[in-house]
Amino acid sequence: MYTKVFLATAFTSKSPKEVDVLKDCLFCIDGEGLIERIVHPEHADYEKVLDEYIHTDVFQKIEAGSYLLPGFVDLHVHASQWAQAGTALDIPLHDWLSTYTFPSEAKFADLDYAKTVYEDVVSTLLANGTTTALYFATVHKDASVLLADICAKRGQRGLVGKVVMDLVQECPDYYRDADTQTALQDTEEFILQVKEIAKTTKQGVYPVVTPRFIPTCTEEVLAGLGALAAKYDTHIQSHCSESDWAHQHVQQRFGKNDAQALNDFGLLQDKSVMAHCNFLSDEDAKLFAETGSAIAHCPVSNAYFANSVIPVARFAEMGVDIGLGSDLSGGFSPSLYDNSRQAVMSSRMLEDGVNPSVPADERGVNDSRITIAEAFHMVTAGGGASLSLPIGRLEEGYAWDVQRVDTTIPSSRLPIFDPNEPLLDVLQKIMYLARPENIREVWVQGERVHSRN
Amino acid sequence: MYTKVFLATAFTSKSPKEVDVLKDCLFCIDGEGLIERIVHPEHADYEKVLDEYIHTDVFQKIEAGSYLLPGFVDLHVHASQWAQAGTALDIPLHDWLSTYTFPSEAKFADLDYAKTVYEDVVSTLLANGTTTALYFATVHKDASVLLADICAKRGQRGLVGKVVMDLVQECPDYYRDADTQTALQDTEEFILQVKEIAKTTKQGVYPVVTPRFIPTCTEEVLAGLGALAAKYDTHIQSHCSESDWAHQHVQQRFGKNDAQALNDFGLLQDKSVMAHCNFLSDEDAKLFAETGSAIAHCPVSNAYFANSVIPVARFAEMGVDIGLGSDLSGGFSPSLYDNSRQAVMSSRMLEDGVNPSVPADERGVNDSRITIAEAFHMVTAGGGASLSLPIGRLEEGYAWDVQRVDTTIPSSRLPIFDPNEPLLDVLQKIMYLARPENIREVWVQGERVHSRN
Ligand SMILES: [Zn+2]
Ligand SMILES: [Zn+2]
Repeated sequence: MYTKVFLATAFTSKSPKEVDVLKDCLFCIDGEGLIERIVHPEHADYEKVLDEYIHTDVFQKIEAGSYLLPGFVDLHVHASQWAQAGTALDIPLHDWLSTYTFPSEAKFADLDYAKTVYEDVVSTLLANGTTTALYFATVHKDASVLLADICAKRGQRGLVGKVVMDLVQECPDYYRDADTQTALQDTEEFILQVKEIAKTTKQGVYPVVTPRFIPTCTEEVLAGLGALAAKYDTHIQSHCSESDWAHQHVQQRFGKNDAQALNDFGLLQDKSVMAHCNFLSDEDAKLFAETGSAIAHCPVSNAYFANSVIPVARFAEMGVDIGLGSDLSGGFSPSLYDNSRQAVMSSRMLEDGVNPSVPADERGVNDSRITIAEAFHMVTAGGGASLSLPIGRLEEGYAWDVQRVDTTIPSSRLPIFDPNEPLLDVLQKIMYLARPENIREVWVQGERVHSRN
Repeated sequence: MYTKVFLATAFTSKSPKEVDVLKDCLFCIDGEGLIERIVHPEHADYEKVLDEYIHTDVFQKIEAGSYLLPGFVDLHVHASQWAQAGTALDIPLHDWLSTYTFPSEAKFADLDYAKTVYEDVVSTLLANGTTTALYFATVHKDASVLLADICAKRGQRGLVGKVVMDLVQECPDYYRDADTQTALQDTEEFILQVKEIAKTTKQGVYPVVTPRFIPTCTEEVLAGLGALAAKYDTHIQSHCSESDWAHQHVQQRFGKNDAQALNDFGLLQDKSVMAHCNFLSDEDAKLFAETGSAIAHCPVSNAYFANSVIPVARFAEMGVDIGLGSDLSGGFSPSLYDNSRQAVMSSRMLEDGVNPSVPADERGVNDSRITIAEAFHMVTAGGGASLSLPIGRLEEGYAWDVQRVDTTIPSSRLPIFDPNEPLLDVLQKIMYLARPENIREVWVQGERVHSRN
């Protein structure tokens, strides 16, 4: 007995480069919100299952012109920075942090303010088709727990980290952990409180060990956080080799690259996701592949703060898990559609190069481009693999985390004029042209958590 | 006696780098749809004008949370290509034209099909806040006149060109002008027919002399089109130095750059707008500045087909008029908001460079970045200056081409949590985060041509 059955045409990633079209399939959901069975029209049981459910109220037919896609997985969001999205993007990373971002994050000591912003960002991401998000909160323990609680209540799959930053020289007095011991103790309490919330949360909510990045952390705290992650088997997130400045900072301090330093502190493992990673060496990338650590590729943000385009095609080829991140508000957009588009565009710009004064054959980096199908893989299945969770694919055993995209609504009709438009072209048009208003329903773990009329 | 009076807070470009905030001003519109007067709250007449109009039905107060921006000017749209937007972006320009684009454009011999696509693209651009568009139609004269007619009827300020491509070696049999003489005769008839439509069109509709680009045109037709543009004082549009391939093609054929060749055919003048222009030399740019020719910068499309980022900051510094173009469907997005964002991001990527393996000081091109305020200038005032029309600014004597952006609608609220958020930050949030659903009303030449309840 299924709790929900959908008759729909859907898209899911078949491989890093290929998309599978599931045309007119029956998607059968179990009591835990997992896909128990997908029945194709050619299958002998199709008519039987259809007959059994079509007149029940757990059956939903997705009408022509609407398509199902896996919910998107955002691997890097500073939830608190939503309040400043779109502003202050004209300055370097280091100044941006100290002049705008730290003061803005400091406001989250106020739980009322935190509630306002966090509820808005969680709802906004759901409305953009993001069903799972890996969040940085702020240094404040209580506000960070509040964010986890809001995700739990709103039905989003939230992975939430209380940010740790305890290095006095690099953090302002008004915004840092009181000291190293407090940072570790708050993190441990945070982990326990979120695990408590998780017990009654169908879709799951997860505590994440979150050193902001090496430049703001003492060695003692980094080692302690690695130990806490091991003790509680949590996810880990941080920033890694984002910009020239950050990359060199770690090199000067430890005489090694970010990736190697993080690994030495026990911070690279299968449930680790590191944001940006633009300046990974090939050795660093191998270390990522070996440890199962993932890259959160943040293409919009990188245009502002990363001084380069990360060669994701090369790192994917080396076997590193890669997903996409909005990086609010280094990236201005809460939409992973926007980031998928930018991932493709940035990869083209890396391949072709940017400076027209340089001869064509010296301008770019061969074999750097990715297609929109590869971006689709990253934003769905790649994100799921990065988090080691059964999400991001429409396959049996995966969670029913799904968005319904309507290509026909009058106010935002996609340019589909040919009734026989190939379905892979329809998916391309969705990936390139869909707006939040095309996203009519969103489910997480089998529950509908967003709808527009 | 004004025909409309608006009380509103608005933004307009003050200079290429600065934005002017018009807070709580009265905008008084005359019978031709021009801004006759802008009254600031400090002015002695403010209360008088307000009292006189506030209780009339020509008065409209723009409520708090909504802001007026000049309508955007799209300097480069292939109206017919809207049908393939978002697809086939993974191949080089030359193949993209012959495999996808020419067959797709050939369908516009069918006027019913043309009507369907053209009505949709004009409505879509209006819904995205684009009040003026410089369109490529197709080679078909009648369908091109139809596009002008649709712009006239829908109230958009359309500048429309029948595309000319007569070079047998470079154009497929099924899609080109019959011969050079027919191309010129069709163009002349097209100009006359559009001028006829213009006589009864309040907002104006303009015929544009449109050689597709040098590679598809005979020398005879290029010279003939230059003469026609002079005879009828029309606008001119084409593509110029878009990609390595196009740039080299013209070099090999004429032993000079595109810009110089176009100029020799009489195709560079004050009302000329050339798309892309990525590979302009400094001499070419000087020629643009001297002749008053403008660049249609198409940042989204350029990521796919231009093999580089055009150094717009440098060309702007040299005095060239620059506006933005969506370049549907080399660019996938009908939104000039998307293109404004990409203009900033691409400029950052040119400044910083893209290849992380290259040392920072050799990676990019200094002083290449533009700010979102500069993109705002390009997409409004820069577009107006490029077309030599009184549009793109909220100033006396300019047309009332305006979009109202509501930052507060529940389904797409912008992240403004501080009631005292500086207005220049509000504009940044609008430029970076507004969606079509935030655009609630659009006026062209004083007439409301788009609204969402
Ligand atoms: Zn970040
Ligand atoms: Zn074009």
